[in-house]
Formats: sequence, C-alpha cells, structure tokens
Amino acid sequence: MKKRIESDSIGSLEVPEKAYYGVQALRAKQNFAITGNMMNSEFLNNLALIKKAAAITNYKAGLLDYDKAKAICSAAEEVIKGYFKDDFIVDAVQGGAGTSANMNMNEVIANRANELLGGKLGYYDKIHPNDHVNMAQSTNDVIPTAGKMTVIRLMQPLTDELRRLESTLYEKALQFRYVIKMGRTQLQDAVPMTLGESFGGYASMIDRCCSRLENSCLEMHTINIGATAIGSGINASDYYERNIAKILSKEFGHHLTKAADLFDATENLDSFVEISGALKACAVSLSKMCNDLRLLSSGPRCGLHEINLPAKQNGSSIMPGKVNPVIPEVVTQAAFLVIGHDTTIAMAAEAGQLELNAFEPVVFYQLFESITVLTHAVTTLIDNCIKGITANSDHCEELEEGSVGIATALSPILGYQKSASIAKQALHEEKTIREIVLEQKLMDPEKLDVVLDPMSMVGMIRSA
Amino acid sequence: MKKRIESDSIGSLEVPEKAYYGVQALRAKQNFAITGNMMNSEFLNNLALIKKAAAITNYKAGLLDYDKAKAICSAAEEVIKGYFKDDFIVDAVQGGAGTSANMNMNEVIANRANELLGGKLGYYDKIHPNDHVNMAQSTNDVIPTAGKMTVIRLMQPLTDELRRLESTLYEKALQFRYVIKMGRTQLQDAVPMTLGESFGGYASMIDRCCSRLENSCLEMHTINIGATAIGSGINASDYYERNIAKILSKEFGHHLTKAADLFDATENLDSFVEISGALKACAVSLSKMCNDLRLLSSGPRCGLHEINLPAKQNGSSIMPGKVNPVIPEVVTQAAFLVIGHDTTIAMAAEAGQLELNAFEPVVFYQLFESITVLTHAVTTLIDNCIKGITANSDHCEELEEGSVGIATALSPILGYQKSASIAKQALHEEKTIREIVLEQKLMDPEKLDVVLDPMSMVGMIRSA
Amino acid sequence: MKKRIESDSIGSLEVPEKAYYGVQALRAKQNFAITGNMMNSEFLNNLALIKKAAAITNYKAGLLDYDKAKAICSAAEEVIKGYFKDDFIVDAVQGGAGTSANMNMNEVIANRANELLGGKLGYYDKIHPNDHVNMAQSTNDVIPTAGKMTVIRLMQPLTDELRRLESTLYEKALQFRYVIKMGRTQLQDAVPMTLGESFGGYASMIDRCCSRLENSCLEMHTINIGATAIGSGINASDYYERNIAKILSKEFGHHLTKAADLFDATENLDSFVEISGALKACAVSLSKMCNDLRLLSSGPRCGLHEINLPAKQNGSSIMPGKVNPVIPEVVTQAAFLVIGHDTTIAMAAEAGQLELNAFEPVVFYQLFESITVLTHAVTTLIDNCIKGITANSDHCEELEEGSVGIATALSPILGYQKSASIAKQALHEEKTIREIVLEQKLMDPEKLDVVLDPMSMVGMIRSA
Amino acid sequence: MKKRIESDSIGSLEVPEKAYYGVQALRAKQNFAITGNMMNSEFLNNLALIKKAAAITNYKAGLLDYDKAKAICSAAEEVIKGYFKDDFIVDAVQGGAGTSANMNMNEVIANRANELLGGKLGYYDKIHPNDHVNMAQSTNDVIPTAGKMTVIRLMQPLTDELRRLESTLYEKALQFRYVIKMGRTQLQDAVPMTLGESFGGYASMIDRCCSRLENSCLEMHTINIGATAIGSGINASDYYERNIAKILSKEFGHHLTKAADLFDATENLDSFVEISGALKACAVSLSKMCNDLRLLSSGPRCGLHEINLPAKQNGSSIMPGKVNPVIPEVVTQAAFLVIGHDTTIAMAAEAGQLELNAFEPVVFYQLFESITVLTHAVTTLIDNCIKGITANSDHCEELEEGSVGIATALSPILGYQKSASIAKQALHEEKTIREIVLEQKLMDPEKLDVVLDPMSMVGMIRSA
Repeated sequence: MKKRIESDSIGSLEVPEKAYYGVQALRAKQNFAITGNMMNSEFLNNLALIKKAAAITNYKAGLLDYDKAKAICSAAEEVIKGYFKDDFIVDAVQGGAGTSANMNMNEVIANRANELLGGKLGYYDKIHPNDHVNMAQSTNDVIPTAGKMTVIRLMQPLTDELRRLESTLYEKALQFRYVIKMGRTQLQDAVPMTLGESFGGYASMIDRCCSRLENSCLEMHTINIGATAIGSGINASDYYERNIAKILSKEFGHHLTKAADLFDATENLDSFVEISGALKACAVSLSKMCNDLRLLSSGPRCGLHEINLPAKQNGSSIMPGKVNPVIPEVVTQAAFLVIGHDTTIAMAAEAGQLELNAFEPVVFYQLFESITVLTHAVTTLIDNCIKGITANSDHCEELEEGSVGIATALSPILGYQKSASIAKQALHEEKTIREIVLEQKLMDPEKLDVVLDPMSMVGMIRSA
Repeated sequence: MKKRIESDSIGSLEVPEKAYYGVQALRAKQNFAITGNMMNSEFLNNLALIKKAAAITNYKAGLLDYDKAKAICSAAEEVIKGYFKDDFIVDAVQGGAGTSANMNMNEVIANRANELLGGKLGYYDKIHPNDHVNMAQSTNDVIPTAGKMTVIRLMQPLTDELRRLESTLYEKALQFRYVIKMGRTQLQDAVPMTLGESFGGYASMIDRCCSRLENSCLEMHTINIGATAIGSGINASDYYERNIAKILSKEFGHHLTKAADLFDATENLDSFVEISGALKACAVSLSKMCNDLRLLSSGPRCGLHEINLPAKQNGSSIMPGKVNPVIPEVVTQAAFLVIGHDTTIAMAAEAGQLELNAFEPVVFYQLFESITVLTHAVTTLIDNCIKGITANSDHCEELEEGSVGIATALSPILGYQKSASIAKQALHEEKTIREIVLEQKLMDPEKLDVVLDPMSMVGMIRSA
Repeated sequence: MKKRIESDSIGSLEVPEKAYYGVQALRAKQNFAITGNMMNSEFLNNLALIKKAAAITNYKAGLLDYDKAKAICSAAEEVIKGYFKDDFIVDAVQGGAGTSANMNMNEVIANRANELLGGKLGYYDKIHPNDHVNMAQSTNDVIPTAGKMTVIRLMQPLTDELRRLESTLYEKALQFRYVIKMGRTQLQDAVPMTLGESFGGYASMIDRCCSRLENSCLEMHTINIGATAIGSGINASDYYERNIAKILSKEFGHHLTKAADLFDATENLDSFVEISGALKACAVSLSKMCNDLRLLSSGPRCGLHEINLPAKQNGSSIMPGKVNPVIPEVVTQAAFLVIGHDTTIAMAAEAGQLELNAFEPVVFYQLFESITVLTHAVTTLIDNCIKGITANSDHCEELEEGSVGIATALSPILGYQKSASIAKQALHEEKTIREIVLEQKLMDPEKLDVVLDPMSMVGMIRSA
Repeated sequence: MKKRIESDSIGSLEVPEKAYYGVQALRAKQNFAITGNMMNSEFLNNLALIKKAAAITNYKAGLLDYDKAKAICSAAEEVIKGYFKDDFIVDAVQGGAGTSANMNMNEVIANRANELLGGKLGYYDKIHPNDHVNMAQSTNDVIPTAGKMTVIRLMQPLTDELRRLESTLYEKALQFRYVIKMGRTQLQDAVPMTLGESFGGYASMIDRCCSRLENSCLEMHTINIGATAIGSGINASDYYERNIAKILSKEFGHHLTKAADLFDATENLDSFVEISGALKACAVSLSKMCNDLRLLSSGPRCGLHEINLPAKQNGSSIMPGKVNPVIPEVVTQAAFLVIGHDTTIAMAAEAGQLELNAFEPVVFYQLFESITVLTHAVTTLIDNCIKGITANSDHCEELEEGSVGIATALSPILGYQKSASIAKQALHEEKTIREIVLEQKLMDPEKLDVVLDPMSMVGMIRSA
C-alpha cells in the first residue's frame, strides 16, 4: 500500500496514501488495540453532526469562512451517510477521554473537506482538523455530547419495543383471562389466580420499566457543548456559546439544552450511571419474567407444564424431540450483560478526577451495548416467544382443584389453626380440601362451593 | 429462665415465660442465625403501623370487635414507642420473604393485646396473631409495604443532608470565586478556572443527585397493601380493599396509593432496584468529589496543596504531624458500600419467582444500610470537612501563571500547531508561555495581557 | 459522667474519666458515625496479639524495658480476654486506613498498662500509646496484618462447616442411590438419573469450593509486619525486622511469613480480592444447590415434589398449612450478600494510591461479614435442611417412566431423526415412548426393556 | 442467492445453497440476533478439535466407519484452518447452553465431510450432524469442554505478557534504585523511599497476580467430556468413556482429565467464577499501578511530576502541547471491563438449574473478552508506557528534602509528641525539619545527618 508521511508533536508516521484519517487516528489505533471492536456507528454519526453544527455556528459567528464551513458540512454529511466507514479505525475502548475518537473525526472531515476544496489528503492547508473542524470545541465537550445524543437515538427503539412487549402481554392477559391456575409463592402452592393475571402483571411491570427509561433519558437532553476544555468555554465565541445548542438541536431533531453549570456537566458522568441503573431495573424485570416463563413451561411431562412456549429450534444435539426455552434463556443472558455493564459504568464514573473523567470510552462501550442488547432481546422475546404462548388450561385447572393451598379461603370462616390442620390432613391422607371439609361436616356443600369458587378466590368476582 | 410451652403446626417449643414474641419468632431465630443484626427499627415501626391501620379498617368493615381492634391499636402504638425492642428477635436476613418478621410482629402485638384484655402471654385466646392481628393481610403485602414506608422515612434525612451539602458547597463557591487555579484534565495541566467554579460544579452535581432520589422515591408511595397472598386480595373484605391505603396514609403522614396491579406490585422488586440505582449515582458523585478533595489537598509539601481540609485527628500512629483526609476517605468507603449493595439488590430482585420474591429481606437489609450510611457520610462530610476548607490562593495562582496549559488561549490567534510548539519550547527551556511569546515577538505585551488574562480564560468576564 | 481532659496535636477533648480509650479514639468516634457497627472482635483480638508480640520483640531487641513490655503484654492479654469490649468505640468503617482502630488499641493498652504500673488513666507517662505500644509499628503494617490473621481465624469455621456439608451430602447421595428420577436440563425433561447422583454432584462441588478457599487462604499467611509506614521499615530495629514474624506466629499459633517485598505488601490489597473471589465462587455454588432444592421440593401438589425439605416453621401468615423452603432461601440471600460485598472489595482494592490503600476498613467490614454470614448459612443448611431431606421415590419413578426424554436411549439404535419423531408422536398422542415403539414394532419388548432400563440409562450399570 | 430446503422437527427452512451450515444454525441465527458479535474463533477451533477426537474415539470403539471418521477428521481440520469462517453464523450470546454453537459445528462438519465423501450439501445421507458428528456427545459436555480449552489457550498469552511486564518492571526498579523520593500515604507526604522500590513493588504484585492465574487455570484442565446429556454418559460407549479425554489431550497438546463426578462437572460453572475472580484481582492490581503512574506523572507544572510517561499521541484537540497518560487510562478501562464481566459471570453461574446451566454462552462471551482485553492492555502498557518511563530525579529529591514527613525519623529519639510539634512548627514557619531541629539544638548536625540520611530512611542501608 502506498503511504504518505504525516507529522504531529510526537513526530512523523506513515499513513496509507488514500486514508481519510490522519496521523493522530493512526497513533491511537496502535496505542489501543484493546477490544477489537470499533466505535458505535450511531455515535460517529452524532459526532459528525456536532462538527456540522459547530461549523454552521462558527460561520454565523463570523469566525469561519463560508467555503470552509460549507466543505466541513458536506464532509460531515458524507460521514453520516456512511461513506467513510473504514476510516474510523480507533478501538471503542481508548485512553484519553475520547480525544482519539474526536481527532479521528476531525481528520476524516478535514481531509474530505480539503479534498472538496481541491486540496490533497494529508495536507490540511485549507481545512485544519484542530483549527477549523474542531473550532470552538474540545474533546471534553463534544464526546459527552455525542454520547448523550447516541443514548437518545438508541433508546427510542428500546422503548418502542418495550411498549410493543407491553401490549403483546396485555393481549395475552386478555386471552388467558379465564384460565384458572395455582399461584405459587416461594415455589410452593399458594392460592388460585388466572393465567391472565400473570400476564397482566408482566405488562404492568414492563410499563413501569419503560416509563422509568423515558424519564431517565430526559437527563440525556442536557449537554455540555460549549464547555470546551473544562467548562469555562475557553476559545469559543460568545455567539457560539449562545447558539450552538439551538443549532445542534435543529440538526439532531430533538431539543437539547446546554447545561447551566458546564464544569459539572463536563466532569461528572452520574447521568450515565442513572440511566444504566434504569436499564438494570428493566433487565432485572425482563429476566424475572423469562425465568417464570421457563418455570411455567417446564416439562413437558416432569414439570409444571402450565403453558407452552413456541418451539423455535431443536433443543438438543443428543436428546431427540427436546424443545428448550431458548428465547427466555437468551433474554436472561442479555439481562446479565446489562447488570455487569452497570458495574463497569459505575466504577468508571467514580474514577473521574478533577475537571474530567478520562474513562468515558468504556462507559459508552458498555452503555451502548446494554441498550442494543436489551432491544434485540425484547424483539426476539415478543416475536419468537410471547406471541406464540399457549395455555394448558385443563392441566392448570386440575392442579388448582387438587391443591391444598385453597385451604386459605377457609381461614376467615374456620380460623387459621383449624384450616392448617385440614390442610395437613389433606396432604397426609392424599385427599382434597373439599373432601376433608365435607367428611368433617365443617360446612355444607353449597356454602363450600361458594367459598372455594375459584373465580371468587382469584379476585375476579370482586372486581366485576 | 422460666419457660412456657407454645405450639404450632410444626410442634411444641419452650418460649421464655415473659417473652412477648411466640413460637414462630423463636423458630425463626433458630433457623436464621445469619448476620447477627436485628431488623431495622424504623421498619418495625412501619410494620406496627400497618397492623394498627389494618385493625382500624377491619373494625370499620365490621369484621373485628371494637375491643379487639382497640387492644391491637394500643399494642401497636407501644411497639412504635419502643417498649418491646428486645422482643424482635429475628435476624434481618431471613428466609421466607419476611414471614418471620411479620409473625414476630403479629405475636408481640397479639400477646400484648391479649394482656391488655386481661389474658395471659402465650395463650392467644382473645387475640390471635393470624386471625386478628394479621386479619386481611399476608406477609406478601405487609412486608413490601413496610419496606417502602421505611425507604420513605429513611430517605428524608438523606435528601435533607444532601440539600444542606449543596448549600454548603455553594457558600464555598462564593467564598472561592476569585481564587484562580489551574484546571486539570487527566491529571495534566489544562486551562485556568477558579476554585469557586470547582465547588459550584460539586453543588450542581449534588443538586441533580438529590432531585433524582426525590424522584425515584415517588415509586415508594405505590404500595401493594390489600394484595394479601398473591395480589388477588383473598381473605380481605371489599371495605378493606377500598379503604386500607387511605387509613394507612393517615396514620403514616404521607400519601400512599394502592397499586393498580396488585399481582405485579407483589411479585416485582424493580422499584427497589431503581432507587438503589439512584443511590448509586449519588454515591458515585460523592466519591468523585471526595477523591478530588484528597487530590487538591495533597501535600502539604509534595502534593498539589491547593486547598486545606480541616485537621480532624492525628493522621498516623508512626508519622508525627501527619494529617490525613480521613473524612473524604470514609465517604468514599460509604460509596463503595452502596455500590456493592446495589449488586446484591439487583441479584435478589432478579431471583423472584412467579407470585413472590422470597429475597426481600436481603434487599431491605442492604437498601436500608445504603441509605443510612450515605446519610451519615454526608453529615460528617459537611460538618467535619467541607465547612472548614480553606484555599492556598497564592500557591494556586503561582501554579496557574507558570503553567503551559495557558497556551490554549493562543490557539485561536496563532493556530493549534504554532501554539503547540510554543508549549513544547516552554517546557523544554523551562520558561513561561509569556516569555516565549514575547521572545518570539508573536504578540505585543498588551495584547498578550488580554489573551492570558485569567479572568477571561476562566469564563468570568464573559458571564459578567 | 465525670470527664478528664486529653490533648493531641489537634487540641483538647473531654474523655470519660474511666475510659481506657483516649482522645484519638474519641475523635474517631465523632468523625465516623457511619454504620453503627463496631469493629470485629476477632480483629481486635489479633490487633492486641500484634501489640503483645511487638512488645516482646522490642524488649528482646533491648529497646523496651522489661516492666513496660510486661505491662503491655498483660494489658493485651486482658483485651483478648474481652475485658475492655466497651472501650473499642470506633465504627468499623472509618477513614484513615485504620489509624483510628490502631490508636484505639494503642490507647486502651497504654492506659491499662499504665494502670498496672501504678499510673493514672489518661496520663501515658509510663506507657505512651505511640512511643511504647506502637513501637516499631505503623497502622500501615499492623492493620493489614491483623486483617489477614482475622481472615485465617474466621475461615477455619467456614471450611469446617463446608467439609461437614460435604460429608452430609455424601450421606444423602448414598441414601438416595437407588431413587431413579428424571434429569432436567433447561428445566425440560432430559434423561434419567438417580437422586443420589444429584447429591453426589453437590458434594463434589462443595469439596472443590472448600479446597479453593483453603488454597486462597494461604496468601493470608504472608504479612507485612515490619513494613512500618510504607515498607521501608523506618523506625523498626534490625532485631525486630528479623524476629517479629516468628514471635507473632508463635503467639498466633499459625505460621506467618514476612512478605519478601514489604512495599508491595503494604500498598496492595489484591489478596483480599482473591479470597473474596473464592468466597464468591463458593456462594454461587451454594445458591445454585439451594435453588435446586427449592425446585425439587416445589409443590406439594402443583410442583415437582420429588423431595421433601424438613418443615422448620409455618410458611405463611395467611395460608394455613403452607411450608416454605426457608433455609435454602436464606442461604441464597447470604450468597447474594457475598457477591455484592465482592464488588465493594474490588472497588476498594482498586482505589489504593501510591504507598497505601486507605480503604482497608471497608474491605475488612465486608470481607469479615462475607465469611461469617456464609459460615452461619452453611450451618443452618446442614442442620435444618439437608440432614432431614426425604425422597418421594414413587413419584420420581412415575415421572421418569412417563417421560419422553428416554427417547434419547433409542437414538443410537434408531437414529436421531426417527427417535425425535417417536418423541413427538408420544407427546401428541399422550402415550409413552414404550407404547409407540411397540406399536410401530421398532424393537421387540425384551430388547426395549434393556434399552430403557433406567439403571443402565443412569450410568450405574456401567460403573458397576 | 440460490437456496436449498432443509427440514428439522420444527419444519422446513430455506438455506443458502452453498452454505455449509444447515437449518439449525440458521434458526439460531434468527432467534438470537443479540450482540452482533460472532463466537470466539479459538472456541470454534476447540469445538472442532473435540469433534475430531470424538470421531477417532468412536472409530476405535468400532462404532464409526473408517471412512466416515476420516471425513469428519478432515472436515474438522479444515475448520481449524479457518476455511469456513463465514459459516459460523450464530451470535456469541445464544439461548440453549450452546446447542446452537454445537449444531452449527455439527452441520458444517457434516456437510463438508459429506462433500468429501461425494455427497451434496444439505443431504446428510453419509454423515449426519447428530448421529455421526455428534456421536457419543451432547452440547452439555462438548460446550463446557471447549470453553475450558479456550480459556487455557487464551490464558497463555496473558500470563506470558504478565511475566514480560514483571521483568520490565524489575528493570525499571533497577534503573531507578538510587532515585530518592517521598513516599505518600493517603496522598499525604509520608517518609522517603526510592523510585526503584515503587517499581519493585509493582513487579512483586504482578508476579503474585500471574501465579494466581496460572493456579486457577489448573481447574480448566478438568473437563466433563463423556458426560453427554447430564453426566451419566448415556449413549457413549465404554471405550469412549475410558479414552476420549486421553485422545482429546493428545490432539490439544495439553493434558486434560475427565472429571471424577460428571454430574457436578456438567451442571456447575464455579470454576469459571473462580478464574474470573483471579482475573479481577489482576485487573484491580493493574489499574492501581496505572493510577499511580498517572499521579506520579501529573503536571508537568501543576502536578507531582516525579516521572515522565512516554508521549504516545497528542493529548488534546484544543489544548496545544498537552500530553496525556492515555496508556494507563486504557489499562484502567480494561480493568473496569473485567470487573463488570465478573458480575455477569457470577450471576450466570448462580442461575444454573438442576442438571445444566443454560447460561454458559454469556459466561464465555464475557470471560473470553476479559482475558483478551487484559492481554492487549498489558501489551500496550509494557511497550507504549513502562519501557519509556523516565524519572525527574532532581525534582524527586527536592521534594523529599523539603518534606516534613521525615520528622518520623526523629520519633525514636525525641518521642512522637515532640516530633509532631517540630513538624507542625516547620509547616507553620515554612522551614525544613532540619532547620527547626538545629535551631532548637535538639541534635548535633552530625547526628542529624545520620538520622535524616535518606538511604537509611528508605531501608537500603539496612538491607545492604
């Protein structure tokens, strides 16, 4: 491959002749061969968008020529269209609070803008990565800003899918509203309920988790653009300070607000901890539901077998005919990822020092994965699992009728202690509660029918 | 010690004759010798309050005699007054989703109410722990409800202290508003700022953390009282269902709302995960600030030495005259506790199965400690540290003037590359930026004065 | 309460007249009202033991008078006997790497030794806390050393209990060696096994966890005593350096070795991270087993119901006759504590800076709790659960015979695809595998008996 | 793209005509679009190696024809050579304990082996994925076995790099052995040491971390091959059971042992928790050292500035001439990843149920990343940071001489209290300790020279 020579304060380096990135991105690539995963593409798009908004603002402020600004904007748009994918060469996890990410973007846009203005790759004579593309900016304001914009963008599909999950669960709740089954607490037979109530409960839970994410995401709309290096706005013009958030909002399509305290907004990452915490609460809830689905569908002959999950693939390489709850299993694994990532994010946020947190790259690496992994998990959960769930109503009812848990309904009439001894006797003599009560003539059959009416026990008659 | 014999479904057991607890609490004590720490006293108070509210409601519903209800209420009030502290004998961490906590309370109140009605300890003939004290209730609704009430109670002192911290930090920001110092990013000299801006940033951060806690705490006001065993409200009367939350709210002094979906509210603990996440974001922020304070006060001769923390105790058993930043250190340790507890809480919440989460006790054990430990940490931080901080203004200014980071301000005029070579030369020749610029006649002294005016660089002139 | 006045570099303070602690402990108490939990008593004993060993060594080195040394030794022994319990007043979580713990001990021993020599509390004229009790020591070597000694002491009961658990599980494995049951993978019916094999597997797992703890604990025997402030051994005599570990070992009753690199041993806490990791692996394993026990004993009528856990207490305040798996539940909660504590410990260890880690107190607070909580959990698990487990052999066998998972055994003969279609048909037509094979005349009955012989399928015939 | 139709128990699906994978891999790809990351290539190689070893063993057992076995072996070798990279299409995170990974491998090998025997892709008439490639195996034994083999393979480069780091640190220790500097505890000036002692301490720490990893890795050599579905070895021949581990070891080049208890070895993942814990201890240690390097190199003018890290890239997009400690920063981020992954791994291990842990894929996903990320971090740390570190010896010495921490050396002679007042006075009057002692005539100058001789204080004279 032909090479060109580029230099910076550190010295000179050979850069592939046709590369749009420059010496700084290349150094970073060599310094940070850590995960092998490149930076999130949505994040790069948002960074490019910031470069465009900054160029517009600097032009309006009278500090950047029209031609230069226009070239920068065009180059940024091309980046967003995905024309330079292979020119973003820095590992997602990098030292330096994202300086390398920022410089990789500055270099690609500078080179392309230069080219648009008739210049040559690697020269930066018309458009300089720092002086023009990065004008009025610092890594320390553009990277957190791009990070928050990315969370906003990635969060939308997640909350959309969660809402779709919620409504799918409500459909199931409706479908199963007359399926009487045993409720179980601590895995022990408790009192009757309907399968619809189970699914309704899941829907309510998802609703709450989703609202929480929407709420936490509001913090993402407060950005530190204009802070430049540490919050003082050094090297940014007054016009820029007053207008950049507005201009960026317009480009972005969502309202973004400049933080009232730019020092705080530059050095603290607690908003990412907060949103990771909300993702964790969602992950915990999804996993709990999926664990339930696996329990309820256990069997087919040696388990609870109250519901059937749709068979999505052969369950075993050795056991013919086995079908496994693979979709809930993968959702739970996604949840475990989110919970682990939350630990990483908290540690990285805690480790910030003085005017900056140098560990933003790892926060973003894990936070973006948390959001996308959860989104994908919810999609497969809806389409490959929840939608196709069926109930084994007869088996559910059989279990309920034979259970001793229904002795609970006797308690207000016969007292706790007497009811307990009936339950004990039923178990011991392998009889039903009904049989024992009638044998001992504790209630007449009609009254007993009312007391043990499942529809009453499940709370449906009350609510009717 | 003299003993009485009590029996339950499991068999008989010797209970100390004068104990207000009964056989079930005693079994639990024997089964769960885990942490050696007893249940949180605020939690016990709230549980007693629920018993009182339930008795009132059951009486109004016509299901509990006036005398019985009155005795239960009196006994509950005595519990809240702390008369039976030693009768709550169950370990904070217990199996069974809090059944033992609930039964310990039911027994103490039953025995005391019985006594008030002229009965004997251990007889339960007038007031039965299950039939009367626990009437219309289940462990599965009273324990989560008491847990949420406890979070509300414990959270108030924390947010109060955080608000006091915030205003103390703002006072410091005001006090230090003219102290020019070097900002540092990645521990390397960056650009100037004021010490007031540092403290203002901390205040803004604490404000946000506190608002987040207040917001997350709203979820605590939605309770599952009336759910009884699994959410269906089995064994609770219609009157009770409609009125218990209102009556409990009145007793408690805060508005509490019955959850719309009681199945969900009984089986899911994600609200505790959420609030633990908000506590974690707060812990992370407090620790970050405290780490900064330790850095800024490092020295006295071989560190940054920009500020002085008040000396609160001898720093060393071997090094005479040493004074250490012990208060920030203990705050950071409190933060580490909160972050670890958050892992425990998430795991316990994820482990819920079907209609109940059996692991509530460990959630409460760690969540309550998180809140109280953070409260205590903030108190000592304000009173024993922040209030007494002083600045070494001269030293701060000296460092700023000699730094090369101020080359940043040259960049818009001389370009990034030229400025970088000035900075490099200054470092190499051990000169100041000013000296190099004047030597090379790059600017006249008056212009340079304006460009390097710290007040302009720190952003104070702009904002004026 | 009458007071005496004590002074230190910070100023004067009123100390209760009869207190054996002094001004420094009192300041610490005021500075660190964090958890409300005092320091671990075993830790205090070990700290006192170090004081005794140091006094002996300093005496032998010719640097401490016989009388003084003797008084210090006597006072230390009294501390170990528990005579001054209420004089250790500092919170377990404290700033300053344990300086307050060390000074509290130095003061108590100095005051008591002074008293033994005819002096007055608070005077320190004969025995000074720093000059005599702390001679040749620093907080920075005695605290980590005492911490490691404490882990050694606390670990013994844990490994003892784990070994007892292992042998109890093996007894169960023997007892249940002929109970044929269905194995389940992913909660779906798999292939047959014996209940004995389940318990044998648990025993093997516990054996491995216990060996790992024993192995990790070896690191605890390498201590940094003699490092004094930072590892250079400043202020300790050559004699002391050569002999203190040996003399301390003799007092302690376990062989302790001075670290080859005392700087490393003073500033790094990774050995505590390692042992916490081994505890976590043990906690994970215990919890997994307990989760299984809860699954296998689920029911009694609507669950797997293959085993019965001993009934240890009433399971519910509302549901009569309900018995819950409270012991496995509390073990799992203990495991969650250990896993959360591991996060705290790792964060604290990572936060060490330069020559010291100031966050040792929170490491010890959580590490000691991890060990004791796990010990207590294992004890109740053995005595209140494992020992009393019984099998429902008939039910186990019924489930096995009716299962379709046994189609696996057909696979080597009929091929995977044919076997899968048999399994599918059996499920669809609600028949057994045996019925379908015979209907389709795929094997003669005798051959089929051999193929589906459970004892062969569970691997017992092979191993015989 | 042209398609072929393949069928399984679930139904039919269009598979690309030239794909070596089959219907089951394709279903899995559709079910598990979770992370977008494919399975680790080393893991796939090891899985292929197991297929080869199994084919050899089954052939020797007389259960697989020579031609079939040979074709399977050839296909497996081609997989290992990387010929079918694009045919492994399943997401790294998948439901089903790795069934899809196993079937993807079975299908690729079956199709290729079929082809080698003259057959057509998608037919499986000569070689069937389950009956031949998977013969005597189950997902449940091959996946954990391949996972352990992969850890062994990935661990070697990590321990190699750690040993290289250790020796590089020792070289630095030697290089800096006469650089006197101030030791700091709790960031406050303590007592003198040499910079060589700092680096020697790091080397000792790395040595310990590396030994621990080597030790934990021993557990990886115990595998559950031969367990088949649940540990009973169903469908594997006696010959296979006795020989598979030996034959696999030979192919693998490391000795592997079949677990004594295959049920335990199949269902429990605690060995992965253990090794993740050892990785965490290593990560914590690396991060602590890197945090120190950042502190010691802070400045250049407003920090400690005792050492210089090699400049590897421009530090800032806005601040000219700034050089940041980017390599230590990225190492710390790698450490945070490992610590977060450890949480995920522990949760997944805890969630195993009965005879299998379905969550192995996420354990491997994070564990493999932990190892490789740490390896890469250590490589860049050695080559781009440690090797090029230089000391600012004069500045170090200046700080040491001016410090008041050296008052510690006076303590054995003048007592703690007197020494403390000297230190206080020195600070107050802005003098040196030496000046105060001479002023007050507390020692004659010669004696003082000896007492304050840094070489003595740092412990080097003693050890000489």
